[in-house]
Amino acid sequence: MKGATEMKKKTTQFREMLNSPGLEFLMEAHDGLSAKIVEEAGFRGIWASGLAISASLGVRDNNEASWTQVLDVVEFMSDATGIPIMLDADTGYGNFNNVRRLVRKLEQRRVAAMCIEDKLFPKTNSFIKGDQQRLADVAEFSGKIRAAKDTQQDPDFSVVARIEALIAGWGMEEALSRAEAYRAAGADALLVHSKLPTPDQVLEFMKHWGKKCPVVIVPTMYFSTPADVFAKAGVSLVIWANHLLRSSITAMRETARTIHAERSIASVEPRIASVKEVFNLQDAAELERAEETYLPKKPSR
Amino acid sequence: MKGATEMKKKTTQFREMLNSPGLEFLMEAHDGLSAKIVEEAGFRGIWASGLAISASLGVRDNNEASWTQVLDVVEFMSDATGIPIMLDADTGYGNFNNVRRLVRKLEQRRVAAMCIEDKLFPKTNSFIKGDQQRLADVAEFSGKIRAAKDTQQDPDFSVVARIEALIAGWGMEEALSRAEAYRAAGADALLVHSKLPTPDQVLEFMKHWGKKCPVVIVPTMYFSTPADVFAKAGVSLVIWANHLLRSSITAMRETARTIHAERSIASVEPRIASVKEVFNLQDAAELERAEETYLPKKPSR
Amino acid sequence: MKGATEMKKKTTQFREMLNSPGLEFLMEAHDGLSAKIVEEAGFRGIWASGLAISASLGVRDNNEASWTQVLDVVEFMSDATGIPIMLDADTGYGNFNNVRRLVRKLEQRRVAAMCIEDKLFPKTNSFIKGDQQRLADVAEFSGKIRAAKDTQQDPDFSVVARIEALIAGWGMEEALSRAEAYRAAGADALLVHSKLPTPDQVLEFMKHWGKKCPVVIVPTMYFSTPADVFAKAGVSLVIWANHLLRSSITAMRETARTIHAERSIASVEPRIASVKEVFNLQDAAELERAEETYLPKKPSR
Amino acid sequence: MKGATEMKKKTTQFREMLNSPGLEFLMEAHDGLSAKIVEEAGFRGIWASGLAISASLGVRDNNEASWTQVLDVVEFMSDATGIPIMLDADTGYGNFNNVRRLVRKLEQRRVAAMCIEDKLFPKTNSFIKGDQQRLADVAEFSGKIRAAKDTQQDPDFSVVARIEALIAGWGMEEALSRAEAYRAAGADALLVHSKLPTPDQVLEFMKHWGKKCPVVIVPTMYFSTPADVFAKAGVSLVIWANHLLRSSITAMRETARTIHAERSIASVEPRIASVKEVFNLQDAAELERAEETYLPKKPSR
Repeated sequence: MKGATEMKKKTTQFREMLNSPGLEFLMEAHDGLSAKIVEEAGFRGIWASGLAISASLGVRDNNEASWTQVLDVVEFMSDATGIPIMLDADTGYGNFNNVRRLVRKLEQRRVAAMCIEDKLFPKTNSFIKGDQQRLADVAEFSGKIRAAKDTQQDPDFSVVARIEALIAGWGMEEALSRAEAYRAAGADALLVHSKLPTPDQVLEFMKHWGKKCPVVIVPTMYFSTPADVFAKAGVSLVIWANHLLRSSITAMRETARTIHAERSIASVEPRIASVKEVFNLQDAAELERAEETYLPKKPSR
Repeated sequence: MKGATEMKKKTTQFREMLNSPGLEFLMEAHDGLSAKIVEEAGFRGIWASGLAISASLGVRDNNEASWTQVLDVVEFMSDATGIPIMLDADTGYGNFNNVRRLVRKLEQRRVAAMCIEDKLFPKTNSFIKGDQQRLADVAEFSGKIRAAKDTQQDPDFSVVARIEALIAGWGMEEALSRAEAYRAAGADALLVHSKLPTPDQVLEFMKHWGKKCPVVIVPTMYFSTPADVFAKAGVSLVIWANHLLRSSITAMRETARTIHAERSIASVEPRIASVKEVFNLQDAAELERAEETYLPKKPSR
Repeated sequence: MKGATEMKKKTTQFREMLNSPGLEFLMEAHDGLSAKIVEEAGFRGIWASGLAISASLGVRDNNEASWTQVLDVVEFMSDATGIPIMLDADTGYGNFNNVRRLVRKLEQRRVAAMCIEDKLFPKTNSFIKGDQQRLADVAEFSGKIRAAKDTQQDPDFSVVARIEALIAGWGMEEALSRAEAYRAAGADALLVHSKLPTPDQVLEFMKHWGKKCPVVIVPTMYFSTPADVFAKAGVSLVIWANHLLRSSITAMRETARTIHAERSIASVEPRIASVKEVFNLQDAAELERAEETYLPKKPSR
Repeated sequence: MKGATEMKKKTTQFREMLNSPGLEFLMEAHDGLSAKIVEEAGFRGIWASGLAISASLGVRDNNEASWTQVLDVVEFMSDATGIPIMLDADTGYGNFNNVRRLVRKLEQRRVAAMCIEDKLFPKTNSFIKGDQQRLADVAEFSGKIRAAKDTQQDPDFSVVARIEALIAGWGMEEALSRAEAYRAAGADALLVHSKLPTPDQVLEFMKHWGKKCPVVIVPTMYFSTPADVFAKAGVSLVIWANHLLRSSITAMRETARTIHAERSIASVEPRIASVKEVFNLQDAAELERAEETYLPKKPSR
């Protein structure tokens, strides 16, 4: 639990990322291990992805895991790291009252921010039949945002409102109108989601929106756009949304197939992290030191 | 939950692996996703590794996660797959009574087998100061085995007793004496653990032990020994104990460093599983078909 | 875990209650302890009440507890008893897909039946603004029933469909029409709910419905009606829905106030169960016997 | 979650109780509901009893529930109340490292204090074969206390060390020697436990101990001693350890038997809390007001 010793609150760290003049990045993680790897790589924040968490649990991105099962995952992630986490909280897992409970639970677990999206519970991943998905009523979703903001005790906890209007094919006017409504309801930032292979929708949104409040994007589909384009457009935060998960799938598949085919781990051994590296990631050394401090000298058997 | 449709009980599948004349293999997994990858690669069984599960949660392999938190992980794994799982259940998480509860919970979740080791709770990984670790009293540990066997309702549920005497430096005689005690207590198989870089200890054990009951080994440290050596020695089951986890660490680190350095996902994109592959692993298609069956036609908005 | 030794499957026990010619009763419980007390009193089945479970957890009956938190409660209840439990599963906690997961989880935990109601998630207790609550679409709710029935692996698992049309003021015709739809979708029984202080609505329903399928009622509000009236009307199962919880509140309040006022437990002591009775309810004696069997003789200190 | 609005931190409230000149009282609770009833009765603090929590879950007081299952219970209790809770944390559920994790988790959930006892994991209730139970090594248990104190981030979190030497029949000298060791290790208070029907042991302890640090007692067995005797002896805190649970058992048994015998709830109805009182305990009114604030006006159907 490195967080215990961090100098600055995680909520404050995240708030500063949102409001910094430059472009900032969140890297996806889906468990305590991947969260540590994000921090170790130098990233300043973590995206606790609903898709990646559900996939790693072995279920679908359709609220098959309960919200407390997701909470348990993000608690392990938060305990394991000192940088802020934004939870991909789907629709908030119900109505405004469920959102209120969620905010309290996230604050207890020192999760810095949550993102909720204007779809219906149970959700479907935006990249699956996105254009057939129904959107939440604007007033109802705005109520969720207001409830979240009224509930949080730490003024630096952030609520990000995710707009699915472009995904659902409702058009730019709808997206902008929802953006204004959610901002007015108290959202600390907007996440504008698009599934086009180009950043056109997002850039057009930025042109109209200006700097009314920070904007977050997820360029999973328009991955080839250089970050400078987003910076120039005024985007605050870019989320690399699922790439650690996806790289782990490729690696694990390759490893499993090789070992199965060769009936041996010999050829795999040099290509993978050593057992000692696993222990290092778990900070086994700290426990050995603590044993010196807190355990009596062991009797010889 | 593919298990619903399997033809043969998982416990029976596992029992047949233990008793088959040829050498069989378990591949490590640590969450629902890696469990699916093990099955997909053609393995016939899964090792739910305590080290890998704790590492993926972001904690140490010292019973930092509670036994019910481990149970939650293995439940997701079991739901996600149709092949048998053996849980690495450390010391059984307490005394014989804790073991009795564990067996009931594992049977409910259709976990086929558990392995318990003759160390003390809370445990330390065998590769960390193994030679300083104290072993459980033989009679106490044998009581755990008997309790487990008396508790199980499915006659095919398997209890594997792990002998740490070689790891702890107590010698071959002690290992063989414990082996006999645990077998007499009802263990369905023995796991003989060694941390030497060669299979010498394990092979010597096999020479003395013969075929009194099936033997399981974990060649993490003596990885270069060909499987045929184990087969010839009469070993029943080989566990590849942590290699999916370790390969995922290498891949995620490389991916995280690249994306952080390049401020872009473009170069990573072609090297990692696609989002569609993630959906496939989650069997999103089944849900789409089920929606056709169970949801009313959606009204247009 | 008495269930381990029961002769007849819990699902079969429940199915027989539903189909027996006479009137049967379920008594509410909300945790392992109250479940044991229901069994001890001679009841043949348990109602795991959503209201009582939420109240005992300290939250509202509005899906504030997640569905897996409810599942954890009912798992303790099921482990503690040998008679069948029907879970009050609210709306099924989402759509048909959430219902499918729920059925699998309940079967694993040997819960015999579940009741789902045709309201919207998150739910509100039927006795709070019942007449303002919206009902589920008939086709959507019927899809949930079909999904549940298609999912269950044990043919004796029961799905009870709860009709809220009378509570919501939609009238008898709507109630009967929904009853027919839900029966056609595969419901094993219907729960017809009314909040009138008299059984008039329920009796009228029975008159029209006849014996097309078993009917369950909850006479919380029409509590003074003798059971024979229900028997004569053809009702199969009566649920005493929240009375253990309510009696425990009265007792605990009285006890707390007395002890606080008197700064003493002396006057309370003779009126409450002894510590020994608590141990008996926990079956401490079985553990003492098991320790004789499974623990080595303790060394003197 | 009333705690959100309390003026003074729960840890500080508890610390002030420990250090106040007068005698203070904790009343047992075992779930969110009973915790609310304790607060409602005017008590200033709550004892989250291991016996009562295990009994209400339906398991034994022998660490059959995992430590995270206990944590889930105490989280509901803490969320439901604004007064401080001391968790009966048994032995700390393992060694010093498990204690460190526990402290972090309790602080997150705003539990004010924990009490750990110098027995071995898994524990047995002190009133069952207490004189045959082995005690923890003094140095090992002192290490747990030091680890807890070094881990806590809120300086007002309290660690209470429970001395079982009198229960185990090791004598007053041993008790006093352990008291001094635990105080020196940093314990904020000592809980001196006795199972005699008179307060003699406890009073003798107080005579020798004086006021070196606050002392907590549990007069379950010597229940007829007036509180003034304890006050005069210098005791800081009295725990009424299991009386809400025990009164609920009596009430629920009586209610269950009556309803079963009478096949009716009519005679029970006037003696038990109304459904409306249940709603009041759940603060249903707050949600109705919040719905006015956060939900759009509902469309008529």
